[in-house]
Amino acid sequence: MKKLIHLALIILISVSFSCQNNTENSEVSEVVTEVKNDIERVEPPNWWIGFKNNQFQLLVKHPNISEATPSINYAGVSIEKVHKADSPNYLFLDVNISESAKAGPFNIHFKFNEEKELVQTYEIKARQKEATDFKGFDSSDAVFLITPDRFANGDTSNDIDENLNEKTINRQDDYGRHGGDIKGIIQHLDYIQEMGFTQIWSCPLLINDMPQSSYHGYAMTDFYRVDPRFGTLEDYQELSTKAKEKGIGLIMDQVANHCGSEHWWMKDLPFKDWVNQQASFVNKQPLNNSNHRRTANQDLYAANRDKKEMAEGWFVSAMPDLNQRNPFMANYIIQNSIWWIETLNLSGIRQDTYPYPDKTFMSNWAGAIMNEYPNFSIVGEEWSYNPLLIAYWQDGHKNKDGYQSNLKSTMDFAMQRHIVEALNDAEQWDTGLVKIYEGLANDFAYTSPKDIMIFPDNHDMSRIFTQLKGDIPNTKMALSYLLTLPRIPQLYYGTEILMNDFAKPGDHGLIRTDFPGGWEGDTVNAFTGEGLTDNQKDMQNYLKKVLNYRKTSAAIHDGKTIHFAPFMGTYFLFRVVEGETVVHIINKNNEPITIDLKRYEEVGLNGKTLKNIITDETFVWQDSIQLKERGSLILTTKAN
Amino acid sequence: MKKLIHLALIILISVSFSCQNNTENSEVSEVVTEVKNDIERVEPPNWWIGFKNNQFQLLVKHPNISEATPSINYAGVSIEKVHKADSPNYLFLDVNISESAKAGPFNIHFKFNEEKELVQTYEIKARQKEATDFKGFDSSDAVFLITPDRFANGDTSNDIDENLNEKTINRQDDYGRHGGDIKGIIQHLDYIQEMGFTQIWSCPLLINDMPQSSYHGYAMTDFYRVDPRFGTLEDYQELSTKAKEKGIGLIMDQVANHCGSEHWWMKDLPFKDWVNQQASFVNKQPLNNSNHRRTANQDLYAANRDKKEMAEGWFVSAMPDLNQRNPFMANYIIQNSIWWIETLNLSGIRQDTYPYPDKTFMSNWAGAIMNEYPNFSIVGEEWSYNPLLIAYWQDGHKNKDGYQSNLKSTMDFAMQRHIVEALNDAEQWDTGLVKIYEGLANDFAYTSPKDIMIFPDNHDMSRIFTQLKGDIPNTKMALSYLLTLPRIPQLYYGTEILMNDFAKPGDHGLIRTDFPGGWEGDTVNAFTGEGLTDNQKDMQNYLKKVLNYRKTSAAIHDGKTIHFAPFMGTYFLFRVVEGETVVHIINKNNEPITIDLKRYEEVGLNGKTLKNIITDETFVWQDSIQLKERGSLILTTKAN
Repeated sequence: MKKLIHLALIILISVSFSCQNNTENSEVSEVVTEVKNDIERVEPPNWWIGFKNNQFQLLVKHPNISEATPSINYAGVSIEKVHKADSPNYLFLDVNISESAKAGPFNIHFKFNEEKELVQTYEIKARQKEATDFKGFDSSDAVFLITPDRFANGDTSNDIDENLNEKTINRQDDYGRHGGDIKGIIQHLDYIQEMGFTQIWSCPLLINDMPQSSYHGYAMTDFYRVDPRFGTLEDYQELSTKAKEKGIGLIMDQVANHCGSEHWWMKDLPFKDWVNQQASFVNKQPLNNSNHRRTANQDLYAANRDKKEMAEGWFVSAMPDLNQRNPFMANYIIQNSIWWIETLNLSGIRQDTYPYPDKTFMSNWAGAIMNEYPNFSIVGEEWSYNPLLIAYWQDGHKNKDGYQSNLKSTMDFAMQRHIVEALNDAEQWDTGLVKIYEGLANDFAYTSPKDIMIFPDNHDMSRIFTQLKGDIPNTKMALSYLLTLPRIPQLYYGTEILMNDFAKPGDHGLIRTDFPGGWEGDTVNAFTGEGLTDNQKDMQNYLKKVLNYRKTSAAIHDGKTIHFAPFMGTYFLFRVVEGETVVHIINKNNEPITIDLKRYEEVGLNGKTLKNIITDETFVWQDSIQLKERGSLILTTKAN
Repeated sequence: MKKLIHLALIILISVSFSCQNNTENSEVSEVVTEVKNDIERVEPPNWWIGFKNNQFQLLVKHPNISEATPSINYAGVSIEKVHKADSPNYLFLDVNISESAKAGPFNIHFKFNEEKELVQTYEIKARQKEATDFKGFDSSDAVFLITPDRFANGDTSNDIDENLNEKTINRQDDYGRHGGDIKGIIQHLDYIQEMGFTQIWSCPLLINDMPQSSYHGYAMTDFYRVDPRFGTLEDYQELSTKAKEKGIGLIMDQVANHCGSEHWWMKDLPFKDWVNQQASFVNKQPLNNSNHRRTANQDLYAANRDKKEMAEGWFVSAMPDLNQRNPFMANYIIQNSIWWIETLNLSGIRQDTYPYPDKTFMSNWAGAIMNEYPNFSIVGEEWSYNPLLIAYWQDGHKNKDGYQSNLKSTMDFAMQRHIVEALNDAEQWDTGLVKIYEGLANDFAYTSPKDIMIFPDNHDMSRIFTQLKGDIPNTKMALSYLLTLPRIPQLYYGTEILMNDFAKPGDHGLIRTDFPGGWEGDTVNAFTGEGLTDNQKDMQNYLKKVLNYRKTSAAIHDGKTIHFAPFMGTYFLFRVVEGETVVHIINKNNEPITIDLKRYEEVGLNGKTLKNIITDETFVWQDSIQLKERGSLILTTKAN
């Protein structure tokens, strides 16, 4: 009886509230009988129930929408606040979702006057899995980085889209589109799995409707649309699902700093400050690009002018710089990230040009995501060789200015360079292997070294085989070493077959060469091995073995690290857990050399039998070891 | 009446205690009628009342002294504990000084048996000034570094000491002794003062009774004795007193890591572990020098073997490595430092090879000194270009391993190199002035940047004029820049007259060339200016002006720092306090260039009149500034 009275009261109250466009706790909802799409654009395209943050913000774009009054009549969903923008063609709606709200479609009414009302059907969905089940990547993973236009063309029907600005496909043009797509990746998941990778990071797959060089993906023109030349949203979802079935996670490459100059909103910006220096852009004034003085983020002495130029300058002139200090833009970017995590069941995000957006926003952005997905992973790109900066950006570092990034993973450009120097340069007191020995010692400054991403190269950098001057033993040493470090390793597609940019070192188009076998008619096929040279096959096989060993190696994932100062052109690194010790030896000597193992006795391997993970040969760790060839040796105490 | 009873009780107790060689609170002291010196060596040579730490430890060396029982009968002074060593010829006495103890001499009795007793008169002195009045050096200072053998020969009578191993003097031999001494420094204090220096750091003046290369001073053979070829203890004290009268502090160069192989104790070491690897030394076995892997101090992955080789290996084979983990050695070094601070009225210590001794000891050492002298300064030499290491060693840094150094000042080898690179290298995106702009940005990582010592060169490094390839404008830019930074600047004698090592770059003997005019008969005299080239005179005058301006510049000592990213080959640094702004401009352009000052408007100088501190010309800060010459410009808003 008491309950009934209570219910009656609620209905009474909610009815009275709904008259004021506030339907909190309402039990009387409008039923959606037919999907309505009167509005030009509503973003995010849908939302979910069950987030910790029970509010989200809708961007509504439609001619003169600011003249309309919006309303929702759906149990548990209410419009908290309506914001007008500078442009009359936008409204921003703060929408509350109460705990009692149920998943489902509902209509948003936009009443202009007694005669005119537009209706948009919107949906809040149920979440597919628990927030804590979104597991991020970590040091137990190995990440395969792909430039999707250049990996495999799985669907030739989408190569050209006549509705888009760049209409050509030309595999002879390093900066043109080559036709690779999501289907291509899906078709080769077996290969990626067999190689031993457990995560795929594809460069952006969202639409870049730019007149040229649209293949790279970093000039997005719609943050909610997959580039049709890469495929559909459903393809992207299929990639995620099929990859997960093979134990492979999906990392999305996101860009919070900028969009492409052909982004739809550039023709009618909601706010004057929606992008930075938009006046210059609109008036075709000389545009200030970013000064790229990334240290201004940390520098206690940096002039305000430099900080402003850094954060508000454009990365390049074809990429308008988003103003994350505009709170609507901030919400837009955060929600966009969450929308994709939820829609694609992501395991992680790689965030582009991390130090370029407003850094307070970046902390809020990462914090908002980690708040919703506590086990998720985000890696931020800070291209710096300075460990102080790498340390600064990683969450938990005690920064003098109090900055907390909420960013779990940073990138180790410093060690990447040290590895190359260590192998390219002759052994001297301060050159050669000492570079990696001292470089790795800098780990003492990091909150969590094993959450930092290491790589031999990436899509913006000369190929490792080129950096190492075509030296195969050096390339193997570099790769096996970084795969043994307390890090999250990332390899770029094609490294396994010695892809290179010798013809024009550092040329971005060339670095992103087509993966052989990804196109019908390719005479070489790296997926099957057909046409590969012996050296390519050998490297592919080598990496496959190392990656597959790494996959289940607790010592590499989480072991204690011990390394010894370089000695006679050799360098020993040990990773140790109970029951497994992995020994990584680099030998730079061209002549055979015998190393007294007494030097390493503290590791406690004396008398133990170790296996070479490449050749399966065994070796009893006793007095000495003979290193016959220049190259690396990976030994393990694990029998299998 | 009550007091009398109390006193009687004390006497009673103390008499009974004195029978047990414990004279705590005794009012009945033995009177010293005649100074006795029966014992070969007692160190420290004296001690003081009034330290926070009321205990000190005497090293007593005498044939078979371990067979004797020591006793002291002096009010307030008691032997707390007697320690035997491994050698029978040593005793270590822990001596307590109670608050009631009065300064004065007393005898220490060493009773071997009923027939044999040796007596040594010892003294505890009153301290000359309050502990808090020992003021250290800081960023308001400018330090003049001297290699004393090479600065000025003030007393030719002490040039050769026939009792010492190296008996020759030869100014033609870069590695021989040249005759410079303490008197030579004293005689030229006027010059040092007029140049604008406020601190003198002389390389070690303690005895180096080594067969060769004894001039450099870092192979000490007695930690309590001034090298007679440099002068006497009284000379050293006179230097301190006379310098102080001119407002110049004295920094002592100390070495806790090693001694010279001819140190007196090497013939009869108190303990088996008094020096590291002494067995090797005694048995003439191959000696392990330090591996010089300084990162082993921080590296979380460093092998124990490497840490041990780093800390226990010898710096060079002529310098036995002291074992600071032996508690008697630890006490010995700490007391030695305190003895010199008190005896010489020091303003600071420069500690050699800071990362080489046991690092826990170094923290205790610095802590013990700073505990007794809270306003004192210590600067440690860590020759590293890695800001992470510079930061690690400075007190207050939040180190992951919890290490607290107690070391106020570290050395900025990183910025030293950046300055040279910035000026030597052409302006490009990542070379040239960007090196100092980004290098200085690293200050965000330091606990206290202004307590770090900066220098263009030192006694172990090629002369700055050589490093800068004989380019005078570049040399001026380097010097004026570092004298304007939030740092403690140190210049090496002779920099002001462009001393160089072009003949054999990097050669230590050559770097430490004689200062012209320091020797009778020198045809060139830099003290008077006689015989100097115009370029030398110009540089001397330039530095004199900058140093003397700096002396009273609150903006440089303590001001806020603002700098701007390099722009068109120029770089602007501002130091700002209420009432004074100092502007330092570097211009690398060979052609005149006009810079729009709007770029710097946030500093708030618009309309203000600034004075060029070198030429006294004034300039009104308005629309633009024309930089006519390649070089630096120092402007100030201060009228005088």
